[in-house]
Parts: sequence; structure tokens; C-alpha cells
Amino acid sequence: MIDFKPILEKYKPTKEQNEELKSVASGIIEKTEAVVKRLKINARVLLVGSVAKGTNLASGDLDIFVVFSKEYNRKDLEKLGLKIGHEVIPDGKEKYAEHPYVSGYLGERKIDIVPCFELSPSTRIISSVDRTPLHTEYVLNNLDLEGRDQVRLLKLFMKSAGVYGSEIKVSGFSGYVCELLIIRFGTMLDVLRVFSNTKGSLQIGFGEGKPDNFDSPVVITDPTDITRNAAAAISMENFSRMKVCSRMFLQDPGEEYFNADRTYRPEKYRERGTSSRIFLLERPDLIDDILFSQAARLRNILVQILEDEGFSPISSEVDLSKKIEVLVECKTDRLPGTRVHVGPPVDAPNAMDFIKKWKDGNSLLGPYVCGNRLCTDLPVEKRNLDEVVKDRIRIFNIGKNIDGLKETMEIVDPAKDGREFMVVGKFYDKELK
Amino acid sequence: MIDFKPILEKYKPTKEQNEELKSVASGIIEKTEAVVKRLKINARVLLVGSVAKGTNLASGDLDIFVVFSKEYNRKDLEKLGLKIGHEVIPDGKEKYAEHPYVSGYLGERKIDIVPCFELSPSTRIISSVDRTPLHTEYVLNNLDLEGRDQVRLLKLFMKSAGVYGSEIKVSGFSGYVCELLIIRFGTMLDVLRVFSNTKGSLQIGFGEGKPDNFDSPVVITDPTDITRNAAAAISMENFSRMKVCSRMFLQDPGEEYFNADRTYRPEKYRERGTSSRIFLLERPDLIDDILFSQAARLRNILVQILEDEGFSPISSEVDLSKKIEVLVECKTDRLPGTRVHVGPPVDAPNAMDFIKKWKDGNSLLGPYVCGNRLCTDLPVEKRNLDEVVKDRIRIFNIGKNIDGLKETMEIVDPAKDGREFMVVGKFYDKELK
Repeated sequence: MIDFKPILEKYKPTKEQNEELKSVASGIIEKTEAVVKRLKINARVLLVGSVAKGTNLASGDLDIFVVFSKEYNRKDLEKLGLKIGHEVIPDGKEKYAEHPYVSGYLGERKIDIVPCFELSPSTRIISSVDRTPLHTEYVLNNLDLEGRDQVRLLKLFMKSAGVYGSEIKVSGFSGYVCELLIIRFGTMLDVLRVFSNTKGSLQIGFGEGKPDNFDSPVVITDPTDITRNAAAAISMENFSRMKVCSRMFLQDPGEEYFNADRTYRPEKYRERGTSSRIFLLERPDLIDDILFSQAARLRNILVQILEDEGFSPISSEVDLSKKIEVLVECKTDRLPGTRVHVGPPVDAPNAMDFIKKWKDGNSLLGPYVCGNRLCTDLPVEKRNLDEVVKDRIRIFNIGKNIDGLKETMEIVDPAKDGREFMVVGKFYDKELK
Repeated sequence: MIDFKPILEKYKPTKEQNEELKSVASGIIEKTEAVVKRLKINARVLLVGSVAKGTNLASGDLDIFVVFSKEYNRKDLEKLGLKIGHEVIPDGKEKYAEHPYVSGYLGERKIDIVPCFELSPSTRIISSVDRTPLHTEYVLNNLDLEGRDQVRLLKLFMKSAGVYGSEIKVSGFSGYVCELLIIRFGTMLDVLRVFSNTKGSLQIGFGEGKPDNFDSPVVITDPTDITRNAAAAISMENFSRMKVCSRMFLQDPGEEYFNADRTYRPEKYRERGTSSRIFLLERPDLIDDILFSQAARLRNILVQILEDEGFSPISSEVDLSKKIEVLVECKTDRLPGTRVHVGPPVDAPNAMDFIKKWKDGNSLLGPYVCGNRLCTDLPVEKRNLDEVVKDRIRIFNIGKNIDGLKETMEIVDPAKDGREFMVVGKFYDKELK
């Protein structure tokens, strides 16, 4: 097996980095506590996330939670949460998860100030964000220093495999899932062996909690709430990819499987003898999860239109890094000039009307009998992909943040356009390295 | 309603034509009887078909049957039948139906000398040809002079509608079916009303015979053998077309529905914005029924190849009038340069072999994970329709009379070729007039 030390050394925060991180965190927490006190809010301030759990990579964010007493209602929590956030990070931006929160930067370091409700392990869920403090506590109680490094290695492997991140646009493994896997199986290599040996779905219980009644490909009961699947975000494709990469690594181990810097770059489209288009829209200022849902809907609608109209889409990809870029690759970008319009069965009450209509209509040929139905060949008015999409997309409601942008949607043929596109990089990035 | 007299006068044989026909028929019969006598064969000679039944149009053929005693076996019947035929028509050609027979011309008049077995109405079928003399007898006993003219009008209507003829290449209504329909319903107009009013299949019994256990769209029990469906040859499409044409005529009667001269002419292809090809082979010297079966198989194989390979065929047609011409119209004649090769599920035993094979193979992109399967994008080597068909057609057995011609098959793009083709005429001829 390869030596994991140098890998860990490269990505694990150094002592100095950790000192600096702790001092930044303490500063923010103090500042936040002061604001809470001044506003006379009954809440405690908590460092959560990978930094709190000691499983962070050098590049990790700082997640500060303001845990509100249950005496507040949701509306007040959201209002007060934003107020605190803006005071702590004056140039922060409002973002929207389960509750709205404020996000900003201190130097290079990303900081989120997130409000949530106080929760005991036995409480019914109010929202999954509210559960985060319990996760931090559970991990701190169950993971030793060596285990935390194993979590770091597992995160690196998953980043490199392109399956790390529970946000919708990734639909992969969260940091908490990595921690639970190491708590359960011991080391990163043990976890890889589990994925390597798993056929079909993967079900992992904790304590008394047994996986049950979950449809997801990976089910990991959350030890802080056994009614919750901590792995619900993981798609079949990312689970499959994790299995394949685990097998590839165990058969032929190499350091290249731990390249956390691996991110896709914008790229020029290479000629594939197909007809691709990139549908380009300006990116509205929204958090990824919400924008991605709408962009994914746009992708699905475009693929559906292209399928219905006969352009035979064969692949598609979405990227939001810079603009909204939806790539759809089709077999053709020009329709045949004739289409067979299938009419009623000859015995139907309206059969003679069909004949009358199309005998005097603009049939290229017909009407004629085909089996027991009437048909007629009609000319196709709009034959070009761009023209058809522009015409058809108008009637669809995609989402309130995108609908207004439809009119300005640019349709680019990446085989002819000299620019580089993020979505093209993402498209090629699916290749197993 | 329109006047049918002038229509009948145009196509019904005149008195002079009938005299001439009878004298020709008598001459052939005498000549045949003399040969039978000289060869000491126990057989009687019989005029059958539309001339014998008095339901012939001016252009009708002469069908002479040599009815062998049941003491002969099939092999002897076939040998002696051909011998008689060749003696009666020295320059006749051998053709193959249920038994081989000799066919030739006397001036413009086509004459067939067909051997068959003696049969009583109650005998189990030996072959349907053997039943022909019984049909002649039944029609002569059940159809008066007026009825015979009604049969002629019905035949004219069906010819004009393109549904007359029980040979495989037409798969329409036989003369005998026309006669049975008039015997059952009285007049041509009555028959048209029956088709016009029929929804779904049509079932007609005779005497004690009730249609039963037949899957065909039209079932007419043969009064000379109630276990036989006299209408078995009629395709769903021709039945549907007959219904539609009957309804169109009854709604708006016109003489143009009785144009027996209507035959399709060779025609130049009109641009349809599609990709059509005519597959041209020399016509071997075979009767239509046998050749058409093989040509239809060629058509089916070509359509299947074009479908499998992604050219999306939308229509096809076969014609044998001059050469073997198979027309196939496709949505495209050029394939995309990339195809997705779908591999095993990631959990399959051979999944890692697939990855190894295509990582070092000629993948354009891949392997990659798609859902729970492995995939890889491969280049398409042969992208042009002509090239693909020439490559794929080699392995197919089409039929012994066509297989030898495959190598010389010409592939013509009718949109670019200046010639006129029979099959193009037939293609446009399906239009309801």
C-alpha cells in the first residue's frame, strides 16, 4: 500500500494554520456572543462543522451556529438570525438554506453565521440544520485524533473521485457521512474495502438504529436521530462511482486518487461528430441549491423538447460556476423536412373529416391508409434546433428566477464558438481517471 | 347516384370480344384434350376463372385447368402437367404456384395451363388450386347475368382503389371474393354500403358455414369448403382502404372511382427533405409471388438494418415491375460520430475488465459511470448510409434467388439521380385520390 503520510501532510492544516483558525474562530464567536447579549436574545453561539470536529482540511470553512431557545418562533428566529449575521459580517450576503443566513469572507476564509433551534437528541426534528450541533457533539465524542485524520483521507479520496459534497449540484457524500463511516469501520482503507465489496445498496445502522424503510442507494442511520437517513443526498451515480473508484484504487493504489485540488476547468469543446448546444443564461444571485434545482429543471425541459421534436439528445450537463450553462448533445441539429402525421383509425367517427381536412390542406403526400389508420405527410416548418427550442421553450415555467431570463438565453454551438466553457470541462470530467 | 352503364360499357368485353374469347378458349381446350388423350392421361380439361364464370373484364386472362384423377400422385401430376402445358403452348414458360404450370401468350391474351386434382366438395383440401373448379361451378350456379355485371363493377372499383388482386404483392381482394360478395349482397352499391358501415373486422358466412377461428381482418367462409377463409389474403391495410374508398364514394360519387386503367407510372422523386435510397437489383425470372416474398424480406432486412444503425426509416416500398426496386426513406443518411457504448452494471463481475479494456481502448471519452452502469463513448467508424448497408447486408440470407445478386445491388439516391423509378410511382400512388 502507498504511504498516506505525505498526502495528509499536504492537505491537513498545519499547527500554525490551526492556531490561526482557532483564533479567528474565537474572535468571531466572541463578536457574535456580544451581539446576542446586546440584543438580549436567549441563544448560545457554537462553532460547528469540520473545524469544530477536527476533521477539516486546510481549506475548510468556518460554520458558526447561533442556537436559539425553543421559546422563539420560526419567523423571529429568521429575522433575528439575519440581524446578528449582518452585524458580525457587515459586508456579508444573505443566503437561503432551511433558514436564511449570512455568509461572508474574512480574508480568504469563508464564514457562515447560521441560526438554528436548540434541540435535544430525543426531540422531533424541526429542520435538519437544527440537528448540526448534535452531529458535532456526536463526532467529538466518538472520533479520536487518528480517526480524524482517517476522515481527512476519506474526504480527499472522495473529492478526487468527484463524489464529495451533499449539496444538490453534487448529490454526493457529506462530511458527516465521512465521519460516520470512519466511526463505524475504523480507517479510510476499511471504508474503501466496504464500498469495493458492496453489491447493490449499502445499509449501515448505528447502535439500536437499524436502516429501515429508506429507498436511497445508501442508507446510514443518523445516530442522533434514527428516523433519519444521513446519506439521503447520495445519488445512485455517485454511489456507483465511489464503488468503482474504491475497486480501482485497491487493485492499483496510487497517490493520484487523493488529489483534492482536482476541479474541472473551463474547456473548449472537442469535435465529436454530434450536434451540441450550450444554453447560456446570466446567473441570478441565489444559493447554489436553489439555483441548481431550477437549472436542472431547465436542463430536463430542454432535453424533453429536443427528444419530443426528434433531435435525439444523447447527453446533458449543467454548470453554475460562472453563468448558467446547460450543455445538451444531440444526434442531429436539423430535422427532416417531412413528418408523418398519424390520424384517426379509419373506423373512427372523425376519419372522413381528417381526409377532407388534409386533402385540401398542405400535405406533401396524403392522406393515405397505413394499417388501419389514416396518415398524411406534412412539411416540417421549423427544422433547425435553435429555432425549435426558442419556439417551444416559451410556454414552459422553469422557475421564478429563470423564467425572466429565458428571453435573453444565448444558444451557442460549442463546436463553432471559440470560447471555453465551464460546462464543457464538467462534461469531460466524468471520465474515470 | 351516377350512371354505371357507360362505365360497364367501357370495360366489359363486347359481344365480338366474347365471341373471339370463346373461340380461342375452345381451340385451346380441344388442343389440350387431344394431348391428354394422346398421352393416355386420366384427366378432364376445364375452362375456369373469370372467363368461365362470365365475370371477366375485357382484359381478362384465360385459365385452363387439367383436372387429374385422384389415382395420380403429386409428383406424376406435376411432371405430366408441365408436359401437357409445353405441348399446348410451345413457347410458354414454367411458373410455380401450388403446382408448377405453364404460362404463355396467344397474341395479347395471357393463357395459363394449370394441373390440379379432381375434388368433390366434401374432400379434404389437397391444395387450394385444386378447389378452383369447384369455385367456378358454385359461381355459375349462383350468379345471374345482372350479378355478373355487378361483379365487374365491383372489380373496377377495387382496381381503382388499388385493392384488387390476391397475389402476395397486392394482398387484396380476389375475383372469387368479389363474386361471393355480390352473391351475398346483391349489387356493387350494396357491397360498398357494407364496407362503408363496417367497424372493425368483417365476417360473412355462407349457408351453414359460419366464420370461425380466423384471425384475418376479413373472413368470408368459402361455400365450397366451410373450413376455408376465401378472404385470407386481404391485408388490414387494403381492407381499411376499401372501407375508406367506399365511404368517400358514397359521400360524393364520381366516375373516377371506376378507373381500371389506373396503374402507377414511373416517377421522379420529389424533394421531401428526407434521406431516401432506392436499392436496385436485376429481376430474376420468377413468378411474382415467390419473388415478392424475397423482395419483401429484403425490404424488411434493409429497414431493420437502418433502424438498428440509427438512420430512423420512416417509410418503405417495393416494386418488381421492371427491376427489384426497394425504396427506403430515412430521417438521415449520416450518423453522428460518437456512440454511447453501454457496459455492465458497476457490480457485475466483468465491470473492472470493461474499465481496463476501454481506458486503453479507442474511447473518445470514458469509461464513466452513468447511473449504476459503466459506459464509454466510442467513435462511429462507418457513418454513411450506403457504406453501413453494404457492410451489414452481407451476413443476411434473404432468399436463394436474391442472395446471389446482393453484390451487384446498386444504391441510388433518388433525390440526386435523374432517372424515373417505378417504386417512386408506387410510393406516391398510396395517396387517396
